[in-house]
Amino acid sequence: MKNKHVFSALLIVFSMSTSILDAQDLIMGFPEEETDAQITLEAKFDALLNADNLNSWMKYLTAQPHHVGSPYDKKVVDFVAAKFKEWGYQVRIEKFDVLFPTPKLRLVEMLAPTTYKASLTEPPVKGDPYSDQTKEALPGYNAFSVDGDVTADLVFVNYGIPEDYVELERRGISVEGKIVIAKYAGSWRGIKPKLAAEKGAIGCLIYSDPEDDGYYRGDVYPKGPFKNEYGIQRGSVMDMPMAPGDPLTPGYGATDDAVRIDIKEANTLTKIPVLPISYHDALPLLTALEGPVVPNSWKGALPITYHIGPGPAKVHLKLEFNWELKPAYDVIATMKGSTLPDEWVIRGNHHDAWVHGANDPISGLVALMEEARVVGDLVKQGHQPKRTMMYCAWGAEEQGLLGSTEWVETHAKELKEKVVAYINTDGTGAGFLNAGGSHTLEMFFDEISKSVMDPVMNVSVFERRNALEKVKNNTSWAHYKLGALGSGSDYSPFFQHLGIASFNMGFGGESSGGEYHTMYDSYQHYKRFKDPNFQYGVTLAKVAGRTSLRLANAHILPFEFTHFTSVVKKYANEVINLAGSLREDANRHNMLINNGTYALASNPKNNLKVPEKKASVPYFNFAPLDNALIILTAQSDNFTKTVNNRSLSYHSRRNLNTILRNMERALTREHGLPKRPWYKHHIYAPGFYTGYGVKTLPGVREAIEQSEFEQVQAQIDILASVINKFSSKIKEAISLFE
Amino acid sequence: MKNKHVFSALLIVFSMSTSILDAQDLIMGFPEEETDAQITLEAKFDALLNADNLNSWMKYLTAQPHHVGSPYDKKVVDFVAAKFKEWGYQVRIEKFDVLFPTPKLRLVEMLAPTTYKASLTEPPVKGDPYSDQTKEALPGYNAFSVDGDVTADLVFVNYGIPEDYVELERRGISVEGKIVIAKYAGSWRGIKPKLAAEKGAIGCLIYSDPEDDGYYRGDVYPKGPFKNEYGIQRGSVMDMPMAPGDPLTPGYGATDDAVRIDIKEANTLTKIPVLPISYHDALPLLTALEGPVVPNSWKGALPITYHIGPGPAKVHLKLEFNWELKPAYDVIATMKGSTLPDEWVIRGNHHDAWVHGANDPISGLVALMEEARVVGDLVKQGHQPKRTMMYCAWGAEEQGLLGSTEWVETHAKELKEKVVAYINTDGTGAGFLNAGGSHTLEMFFDEISKSVMDPVMNVSVFERRNALEKVKNNTSWAHYKLGALGSGSDYSPFFQHLGIASFNMGFGGESSGGEYHTMYDSYQHYKRFKDPNFQYGVTLAKVAGRTSLRLANAHILPFEFTHFTSVVKKYANEVINLAGSLREDANRHNMLINNGTYALASNPKNNLKVPEKKASVPYFNFAPLDNALIILTAQSDNFTKTVNNRSLSYHSRRNLNTILRNMERALTREHGLPKRPWYKHHIYAPGFYTGYGVKTLPGVREAIEQSEFEQVQAQIDILASVINKFSSKIKEAISLFE
Repeated sequence: MKNKHVFSALLIVFSMSTSILDAQDLIMGFPEEETDAQITLEAKFDALLNADNLNSWMKYLTAQPHHVGSPYDKKVVDFVAAKFKEWGYQVRIEKFDVLFPTPKLRLVEMLAPTTYKASLTEPPVKGDPYSDQTKEALPGYNAFSVDGDVTADLVFVNYGIPEDYVELERRGISVEGKIVIAKYAGSWRGIKPKLAAEKGAIGCLIYSDPEDDGYYRGDVYPKGPFKNEYGIQRGSVMDMPMAPGDPLTPGYGATDDAVRIDIKEANTLTKIPVLPISYHDALPLLTALEGPVVPNSWKGALPITYHIGPGPAKVHLKLEFNWELKPAYDVIATMKGSTLPDEWVIRGNHHDAWVHGANDPISGLVALMEEARVVGDLVKQGHQPKRTMMYCAWGAEEQGLLGSTEWVETHAKELKEKVVAYINTDGTGAGFLNAGGSHTLEMFFDEISKSVMDPVMNVSVFERRNALEKVKNNTSWAHYKLGALGSGSDYSPFFQHLGIASFNMGFGGESSGGEYHTMYDSYQHYKRFKDPNFQYGVTLAKVAGRTSLRLANAHILPFEFTHFTSVVKKYANEVINLAGSLREDANRHNMLINNGTYALASNPKNNLKVPEKKASVPYFNFAPLDNALIILTAQSDNFTKTVNNRSLSYHSRRNLNTILRNMERALTREHGLPKRPWYKHHIYAPGFYTGYGVKTLPGVREAIEQSEFEQVQAQIDILASVINKFSSKIKEAISLFE
Repeated sequence: MKNKHVFSALLIVFSMSTSILDAQDLIMGFPEEETDAQITLEAKFDALLNADNLNSWMKYLTAQPHHVGSPYDKKVVDFVAAKFKEWGYQVRIEKFDVLFPTPKLRLVEMLAPTTYKASLTEPPVKGDPYSDQTKEALPGYNAFSVDGDVTADLVFVNYGIPEDYVELERRGISVEGKIVIAKYAGSWRGIKPKLAAEKGAIGCLIYSDPEDDGYYRGDVYPKGPFKNEYGIQRGSVMDMPMAPGDPLTPGYGATDDAVRIDIKEANTLTKIPVLPISYHDALPLLTALEGPVVPNSWKGALPITYHIGPGPAKVHLKLEFNWELKPAYDVIATMKGSTLPDEWVIRGNHHDAWVHGANDPISGLVALMEEARVVGDLVKQGHQPKRTMMYCAWGAEEQGLLGSTEWVETHAKELKEKVVAYINTDGTGAGFLNAGGSHTLEMFFDEISKSVMDPVMNVSVFERRNALEKVKNNTSWAHYKLGALGSGSDYSPFFQHLGIASFNMGFGGESSGGEYHTMYDSYQHYKRFKDPNFQYGVTLAKVAGRTSLRLANAHILPFEFTHFTSVVKKYANEVINLAGSLREDANRHNMLINNGTYALASNPKNNLKVPEKKASVPYFNFAPLDNALIILTAQSDNFTKTVNNRSLSYHSRRNLNTILRNMERALTREHGLPKRPWYKHHIYAPGFYTGYGVKTLPGVREAIEQSEFEQVQAQIDILASVINKFSSKIKEAISLFE
C-alpha cells in the first residue's frame, strides 16, 4: 500500500511551525481513510464521559485512609478491580511483598534552653469528618528513615541543599554530630537527610514553613486550602535518585520467590533518622536557636528572626519503626487489541495514598477509571482498539514507586518487547494542562492539546496554556511544549529504567493548597478547593484518553524526530554553556578571593569567612556530541522527507512500527548512569541532588555541576554514542521505505 | 599667569578612564605649586581628628529628646553654637517661627468584627535608660497630618503607591470612603496619604511591617538593632515633592515679619488624617480583614494570611493636633576666607531629632562638628581657607527641611551669588561610602574617595565601595559614581531650589536597624549597632572635610563637564527608552486584553477583572534634546581641551571661577517644574509619586511616567533649552582663555 497520505499530517507538522489542523481532518499516524473513524470514536468517547462517576468513586475511594498494607487499601484494590471487570477487562491483581516501615515510636523533644515536646499530631478540623479518622491513619513520618535515638544541638540548614552548606561553611558552622532542621521545600525531601548525613549530621527534622504552603500563601485549612499549623507532610525519603522500588529486591521484582537482600545491605534507606514536623512544632525549636542570623534567602514566614545555631536548642530525636513486608497490589486491566495484541499501550495511576489521598492520587485515578469505563463501552459498541490497552492501578507508590517498579522489574523483558508507550497520571487539579514526556511524541501530543477544549473557557487546553505563556512570559508557543520528566510518579520505571516512551500529565494552577500528604487531603478539601465539579478531571480523561486511543489505533506510530532533535540540541547547548559559565564563574570567584576583593566587600562584624575557592573548570571536547547532533539532524530530516515522499509495503509498515516502538530504548544504555545503574535513560533523569527535579543529558550535566571534571569527557563520549545509536535506528527506519 | 599646570590633574582625569593619582601629587583645581601645601594641610586635618569628641558630643546631644520647640533642642543649639564660637567661628543663631503641629489626641480603635484599642506607645526597654524618657518625647505621629475624626471599613493597600491601586482596581475594590492601612516601606511616607486621598480614602494608617525593618531582618531591640513590635516610625507627611519648608510661608523665609498665609491655604498639609502605628497595633486590624488574599508581592512577615478587605474590620481614627508656631534655630558658623571671602563653601547637618536621634541626625552632626573644630585649629595654626567656610546646624529638618529651607529662602539672593557648593550630611553609620551630588563635581569627588582610607580595611573608601560593585554587581567602577540626589535632607533647598552644586554623603551597609524615627534611636543603640568607636564618623569627617577644604582653597574651582555630559546622556537615553518601552508595553497589554488572552490566563475563581487598557504612547520629537546633547558634548570636550592647552590671566581666572560657581544655576529655570514651581533644577528632583526617590530629567520623565503625554513635547523643549543654556555658559568659560 502506498502510504503517501498516512504521513500527510506529519507533513503539515514538519513543514509549518504551527500545526493548526482545520476541523481536525488529519491526525498524526492516521491515513486519510482512517481519520474520520478515529475522530468519530473520540467524539463518542467524549460524549460518554460522566463527571458524576469521578465524584462518586472519589467519595468511595477516599472514605478511609488507604496506605499500602491497610485494610481499606485492599478494599480500594478490590473495588477498582471489580469495576474494570464489570467494564469488560481481563483483570489480574499482582501482589508484591515490599518493605514498608511504619512508626512504632516517634519522639521529638527540646531539652535546652527550654523544654518542649513536639505534638506530632494533626488534630481533626471542623467541617471535615475525614480528619477525625486518626486511628486508621499513619501519623506524620518519613518512610525509610532508619531507626535512631540521637540527642544533639540543632542547626537550621534552610532547605538542606548543597548551596546551603556553602553558606554554613562561610559562617564556620559544621553540622557534624548535630541534628539539622530543614524547610520542606526547595528540593525533594529525600535529598535533605541524604546530604545532611554526607555532612556528618546525626539526625534530621523537616518542617513545613508557612511561607511555602501555609498562611503565607493563603487561608489555612479548614478556612482555606493551605496548611494549618499542625499539618505534617508525610513522604518517602528513600534514595530514589539512586533507584526507586523495594529496597530488598534491587533491580528485580519483589515476587513471592524473590531472594531478598539483608536490610543492612539495602542502600536506599537513609543513613540517619529523619522526621517531618508541623510548623507548630518547629516554631519553639527555631525560636530557641541562636548564632548568626540566616542569610536573606533562607528566611521563612514564621514570626521570628531565623538563626542558624548550632544550639542552644538541644534536641532529642528518637524513632523506631516496624520493619515489615507489606503487600503492594497492582491492578492490571487488559483490553486485548484486535489486530496488534502484542503491542501494548499502558495507562497508569497509583491507588495507594498517604492518608485519604483525595487529590494524591485519587483525583487522577478516577479520571483513569472513567477512561477505562468508556473504552469498555466503546468496545461493547464494536470499537475494539487495534493494539492492546492496559489500565493499571499501582500500589505502594508513595513509598518509592514500589508497586509499579516491582511490576516493571518483574515483566521487564516482555514490556521492552511490547510496550508502545506509558501514559501516567497522578493527583490533578484545575486550570492549565501540564504535561511532560518523550519529545519524540511532542508533536503528536501537540495535536491532542489543540483538540480538547478547556471546560471553562471556550478555547482548547493548548490555547489556555499558551495564554499563560503570553501573559506571564511574554512569549508564545507554536506547539505544546512537553516538559522533561524527572521523577516523582510511576512513569520512572517505564521511562528511565526501561526506555519506554512515556507521558505524565495533569491540570493545575488554580487549585493550590497545603494538603499534600497530610491528614487533610480529603474529599471535603478536594471538593471545596480543587475541581469541585470534576470538570477538569473529565478534561484530563479526554486528553489522556485521546493519547491512549490514538496510540492504540495508529496506522503508523506517531513518533517523529525533528522536534526531538531540536530539543536535544537545546539541552546540549545548555550543557556546553554551563561548562563555559561555570568556568567563568570559578575564575571570577577565585580572582575576587585572590585579590582580596571578597574580604573588602564583606562586613567584618559578621565574621563571614571568605568563601572556598572553586575548582577551575577545564575545557572539554564537545566535538563528539556536536558531531552526533549533526548526524541526528540529518537522519531526522531524512526521515521526515522519506515518510512524506516514499511508500511502504504492509510488511515494512509492521517493521517500521516495531522500530518506532523501540526508538526510546535506543536512548538507554544497559550500564545506566554513573553511580546509579538503575537509571538507563541518557537524555532524562531525576537529579542526583534535586530528587524529583529533572536533569537532562544527566551524565554530562551532573559531572559538570558536581565538579567531577575527570568524568565529563567520558560522559560526553557516552552521550554521543547513545545519540549515534539513535540516529542509526532512524536510518534503519528509513531503509524500510521503497 | 600661565595656567598650564593648573589643569594637569584635570588632564589626567580627562585622558584616562581611571584616575590613579600616584602619591596624590596632583589634585583637581590646584596648580603643582599649591598641591603640596593642600596635601600637607589635609594630612594635618586628618591627624587632628579625634573620635572621642564624636562620642562625648553624641552622648551630650542625645541625652534627651530634642525635637523642634523642645527645651532640650534649645540646649543642643546653644551647645553647638558655643562650640563653634570656642573654635574661632563667627556664630549666629537664626530663628524661624515655623508651623509645627504636635498631637493633642491620637485614637485608633477597631469597632468590628472584634474590638481593639491601639496602644500607640513605645514602652521602655531593658538596658536602654533613654527609652524611659517618654514624658519628654513626642509620641508616634505624622507631622502635618490634618485633624480628623473618621470611622470606616479598613482596606489594606500594600505600600499605597500607584501600582497598588491598579491591583485594587483589578479586584474591583475602591478605597472611596474607606480608611486605608499601608506598609511603611516602598515609598516615602507622605506619598501614602497623598495618593489615598486622591483615591477618595478618608483616613490613613501606616505601619511598620516586620519584613521591612523588624524581626524578619534580624533580632529586634534591645536584643538586636531592628524594630521591636512596639516601634513607631514618626515622620513628616508634608507634601514635600511639592515643596519643603514652612507651609505658612511658601517660597519665602519664615522670619518674624513674614506674612503668613492662612493655614487653610497651605497646600502641603495632608488632605486626610494619617497616623503611624507599630506592628503590634497593626496585627489585630490586619488579622480581622477579609476579602481577597493579597497579591504575592504585597505579603509581609506577620504570621497571618494578608487580606485586602474592605472590612469587616471597621476602624475609628481620631486625631487632633496643636497647630502652633515653634522656633526653628539654625546655627550658622562662619570662618571668613582669606582671599575670597565672598565665595562660600557651606557644610550642613541638622540638629533636631524626632526623639533622641543618635543616628538621625547626631551621628552626622558630630562628624561635622569635629571637622569644624579641626578647621578652627588649622586656622589658628595659620591655615586660613581662601574662601569662606560655613558650618551650619539646621533646625526642624524632620518636619520638612524647615530650618534649612527657611534660611535658604531668606538669603536666596546672597546665596545664589556667593555659594560655591553645599555639602550635606545627616545620619551616618558604618561600612561603605554612599555619596550623591552634582555630576559636575563627580571627578573631583572621585579623587577624594581615592585619597581617604577605610578605617578597617587597608584600602581607600573608593576601593572598598568598588569591591562591593565587583562582588555584588559583577562590575567595576573606574571612578566614584555619585548618586543622583532626590530629597530627604537639607540639600534640597540649596540644590533643587537655588541650583547650588551639592553633595550628600554618609557611610552605611554595616549598620542596619529599625530605630529610624523611633524612641529607640538612642546613644545605646548607636554604640551597640552602628559605629561603636566612631571610626566611620571620623572617616566621614575626612571625606567631607577634604571636600570642603579643597573647594575652599582651589585655585580654579574643580568643576568639569565631560563626565557630567555622559551622565546626562545616560539619563536622556533612559527617558527615550522609557517612552519606547512604555509604548511597547501598552500595545502588548492592550492586545492581550483585546484578543481575550488576559481573560484566558486568569483564574476565574479569583474574580479578577481584566486590567484597564493603557493609554497609547505617542511618538515624541526627541531631536531638540539630542541636538542639545551634541552641543553639550562639543562644548564640554572643548572646555577640557582648552583648560589643558590654553592660558588664563589672573583676572580671567576670577571670572572663570565665577562662571564655574554659577554653572549649576544654569540647570535651573525660574518657572520650576510643572505643578511644583519651587523645584527649579531640571536635571534632578524628588519624584512626584516617590517622594525621596530621585527622578532625573524630571519634567520629561514624569510627564511620560504619569501618562501626561500632551506635556511631554513641551518638557523636551524646555529641557533642551536648559541644556543649551548650560552649554552657552561653558562656551563663555572657554572664551576667557587666551
